[in-house]
Amino acid sequence: MTSPAEFYGTHRELLDKAIEAAGVRGYWSAYPESPSKSVYGEDAAGAGEQAFRALLGNDFPIEVPGATGTVATERSPYGIELGIRYPKGEPADLIAAARAAVPGWRAAGPQGRAGVAAEILRRVNARIFEMAHAVQHTTGQAFVMAFQAGGAHAQDRGLEAVAVALAESTRIPATTTWSKPQRGGDPLLLEKTSTVTGRGVALVIGCNTFPTWNGYPGLFASLVTGNPVIVKPHPGAVLPLAITVQIAREVLAEAGLDPNVVTLAVEEPGDGIAATLATHPDVRIVDFTGSSEFGNWLEANARQAVVYTEKAGLNTVIVDSTDDYKGLLRNLSFSLALYSGQMCTTPQNLLVPSGGIETDAGHRSPDEFAADLGAALDRLLGDPKRAAGTLGAIVNDGVLARLAEAGSLPSVVHPSAEVTDEQFPGATIRTPVIARLDAADEKAYTREWFGPVSFVITTGSTEHSLRLFTETVRHHGALTASVYSTSEDVLAAAREAALDAGVHLSQNLTGGVFVNQTAAFSDLHGTPANPAATASLSDPAFVTGRFFTLQSRRHVAGESNA
Amino acid sequence: MTSPAEFYGTHRELLDKAIEAAGVRGYWSAYPESPSKSVYGEDAAGAGEQAFRALLGNDFPIEVPGATGTVATERSPYGIELGIRYPKGEPADLIAAARAAVPGWRAAGPQGRAGVAAEILRRVNARIFEMAHAVQHTTGQAFVMAFQAGGAHAQDRGLEAVAVALAESTRIPATTTWSKPQRGGDPLLLEKTSTVTGRGVALVIGCNTFPTWNGYPGLFASLVTGNPVIVKPHPGAVLPLAITVQIAREVLAEAGLDPNVVTLAVEEPGDGIAATLATHPDVRIVDFTGSSEFGNWLEANARQAVVYTEKAGLNTVIVDSTDDYKGLLRNLSFSLALYSGQMCTTPQNLLVPSGGIETDAGHRSPDEFAADLGAALDRLLGDPKRAAGTLGAIVNDGVLARLAEAGSLPSVVHPSAEVTDEQFPGATIRTPVIARLDAADEKAYTREWFGPVSFVITTGSTEHSLRLFTETVRHHGALTASVYSTSEDVLAAAREAALDAGVHLSQNLTGGVFVNQTAAFSDLHGTPANPAATASLSDPAFVTGRFFTLQSRRHVAGESNA
Repeated sequence: MTSPAEFYGTHRELLDKAIEAAGVRGYWSAYPESPSKSVYGEDAAGAGEQAFRALLGNDFPIEVPGATGTVATERSPYGIELGIRYPKGEPADLIAAARAAVPGWRAAGPQGRAGVAAEILRRVNARIFEMAHAVQHTTGQAFVMAFQAGGAHAQDRGLEAVAVALAESTRIPATTTWSKPQRGGDPLLLEKTSTVTGRGVALVIGCNTFPTWNGYPGLFASLVTGNPVIVKPHPGAVLPLAITVQIAREVLAEAGLDPNVVTLAVEEPGDGIAATLATHPDVRIVDFTGSSEFGNWLEANARQAVVYTEKAGLNTVIVDSTDDYKGLLRNLSFSLALYSGQMCTTPQNLLVPSGGIETDAGHRSPDEFAADLGAALDRLLGDPKRAAGTLGAIVNDGVLARLAEAGSLPSVVHPSAEVTDEQFPGATIRTPVIARLDAADEKAYTREWFGPVSFVITTGSTEHSLRLFTETVRHHGALTASVYSTSEDVLAAAREAALDAGVHLSQNLTGGVFVNQTAAFSDLHGTPANPAATASLSDPAFVTGRFFTLQSRRHVAGESNA
Repeated sequence: MTSPAEFYGTHRELLDKAIEAAGVRGYWSAYPESPSKSVYGEDAAGAGEQAFRALLGNDFPIEVPGATGTVATERSPYGIELGIRYPKGEPADLIAAARAAVPGWRAAGPQGRAGVAAEILRRVNARIFEMAHAVQHTTGQAFVMAFQAGGAHAQDRGLEAVAVALAESTRIPATTTWSKPQRGGDPLLLEKTSTVTGRGVALVIGCNTFPTWNGYPGLFASLVTGNPVIVKPHPGAVLPLAITVQIAREVLAEAGLDPNVVTLAVEEPGDGIAATLATHPDVRIVDFTGSSEFGNWLEANARQAVVYTEKAGLNTVIVDSTDDYKGLLRNLSFSLALYSGQMCTTPQNLLVPSGGIETDAGHRSPDEFAADLGAALDRLLGDPKRAAGTLGAIVNDGVLARLAEAGSLPSVVHPSAEVTDEQFPGATIRTPVIARLDAADEKAYTREWFGPVSFVITTGSTEHSLRLFTETVRHHGALTASVYSTSEDVLAAAREAALDAGVHLSQNLTGGVFVNQTAAFSDLHGTPANPAATASLSDPAFVTGRFFTLQSRRHVAGESNA
């Protein structure tokens, strides 16, 4: 057995560094993103793949309170058979088990809980190759992306949440002495104790595309602040979170704690277990990533809980001018193609003034710009092998349906094409659609087309673009925004417009940083400042609503206080 | 003109100290609580009273956007004529004016806003004698208490909120450089800017009894985090907040800012302007202190806003045993008598085991304990002049009605009596009622009897008392709890029960610290862990929901990032 305090001792240096990094917000990472042998060792890749293969077609080894049967709901976008069966528990049993785990978890204290959390992350990282396969075959992310976004970067986001939660829940010291001077007498003397108590049972509702990256912040923030967590994965992406819960329970048991501090809640599609759990009186925290429709429903109906959502919006690019047109096209086309645009951060609405844009390659009309962007996509995706590595696979039929719908628009300038993968001939791979629209076509572009669908939208001017940007994002939300301009005035106006719209902004990205990627410990992901989210990953507001600090005070022993 | 940055420079040392104190949480205070001449100067008392007198019967000098008439709604619990008239604006005009003030206030930045806030507090403190009269004659607090609780302590609570808000809103640095190493190439290099933006228009709904002490935390937390604030005082206690708003507008104007960052919203009783404002789509933050009924209504209906409430509950004392019976009686009787129990923190339910309690003065049955407590009250309040100084005056007819109702209970052991004040013969002054109840009489003791009404409730045992305490506080809430015991086991059980109930606890208070008093920079006041409140004054959670941090990022100028 290793006590929570001992786990804290083991990981204290890492946790201190993580807290410092989350305060400095420069570049920092705890988990290497390179799948190379020089980093993870000679055998890691093979052993990870073997571990993943061993899970296929079997009962996943995990205990679930009150489980009565199993479900198997996943299918690989790469076409291989998964057939993994997970035990299914009833909501009431899961909640009762979580509640029973509270006193011990509260007693572990913030440092002890952070120690346990860091150990969970260490073991998740040790299984990173297995996890990468699990993410690839549930989300459709290409292997390297699954390794990075679903592995190392997700772990970094998890550790960031641990760091912010530990920092915020220890701002008020656990013990303190209060000594108030009295005129002509001894001071009034009290000793005071402050105890962090969790808000209650927490629920994490996972998504299909980024089960770990989007699931870890809420999971670890709730854990470190003293709450038991029920993890409810998307039926299409259970395995990455099941592995995580399995590891968490293993560490909790080793620490002498009730493993039901973390439990897995699976369902058949359509069971609606998320809604049942989220509105239960004992569930006091809900983290959700997914559709605006269900996110808004949770915000309106899970009234007994604090609800942290990451939903959908209209990610917008304002194109005004550039002195690196090639870089712009290369950067933007990659952003559209990466994981087939199946990121909540992929640009959808590209606003271009009708008079065209000035570039170092000459003036470009909106039509020319759209054609150039299509050509850049073709260059990027010309080699099928490289294309598959960038695009990944289409995660589900909903995306395919939207792709078909967009392809039938009258103004398609870059149609979607099928791509064949050598390694996985059954994979569903498609290149992005680009269509031309006018500012007046708001019916089309003010809904989110999740997937590889983007619009080059003609506006009256850059000023009009900025106005349209602010209005649409204010009303419909956005996770990302970006601007290209050589004019400092336009950039300043864009920054002000982004503050008014309430969205994070990237300016003139032409190199190796992409608008749809954010880095843990530096970039915030999402913001409650617009309707696309009610949380930022991970700022203090993301953690402070998850716990209370309760004080007790008494006269200092042996002192007279008359 | 003095810029916000200059005000920050002036007050930086104070703000740094305040931030440090809010982190250490020992004893610290910025504003002297003694009304003595050696502290505030020879002439301060006279000048303050004169300034107060000059306001009576006149139009209060303050600008209100779109004001069309005036209201005069206050009456002094001490019986003097007030007749102060305040200009009345329409909710729509107040909100429009607040929204228009946002860009300038956002641009002032966290430090600039904290500087302005500290200057407002400095000037409020400079008018502390005038404020004390204003608080006395609207709330009924005796003068010294009005000076302390309504003056210095309220200012300390305000500065605490400024400190916590400044600290939390600057955790993410305003600018940072992100440099990610690249294998075999130059690092990726970005400069990033983080800007604090307020959530939106904030509303502070004041209460009748502690307009400044309970109003300042929300007011200053919202201000420093970038929000314009509409201050809606209770119709019975307008003046203390009107003076505050007047000062705030004066400082804002001097700083070259729109004074409508802070506005005053008055009403005739029954206008319901608080509900109108609180549910307006542009009002995004609501702070409220007052009845559970309206607080719960706000939480349920002001859905577009974050709602911080301090409501009512069942403040409980668990009496088990003591080795200082005299000290217990003296301390507890003072807690019941102070400001006629018109504090949201005054004990109401005193739980005593039927077998009685062991004390250093021998065994006491519940009846004997109740009689001893009544006698202690009589000793404390025997001298009319001292009694008036402790009791203050009854704030309104609601309290008088409850006092009459409690007096007609079958089991009154200490009836209420009238007290005459020499200085203010028209004052309404009453001593507390104590009645005996049994644990079975939950109908009587599970509602809040705001005012000088307490119950000695017989339970089966101390263990039963603790169970009753946890159950009633979980369901009905509490702002305070206290326990008396010589047994470390009982104290430990009481601490655990308080964590389960979700309430702050005081243990064995027998000296100069009282359960109904909390000290800024050390004690938290209230907690969302039970139904009596959704906020703690002032922890990080009290401020982090009031702002967003929005980032923008760009390649470092002159660097190639290809």
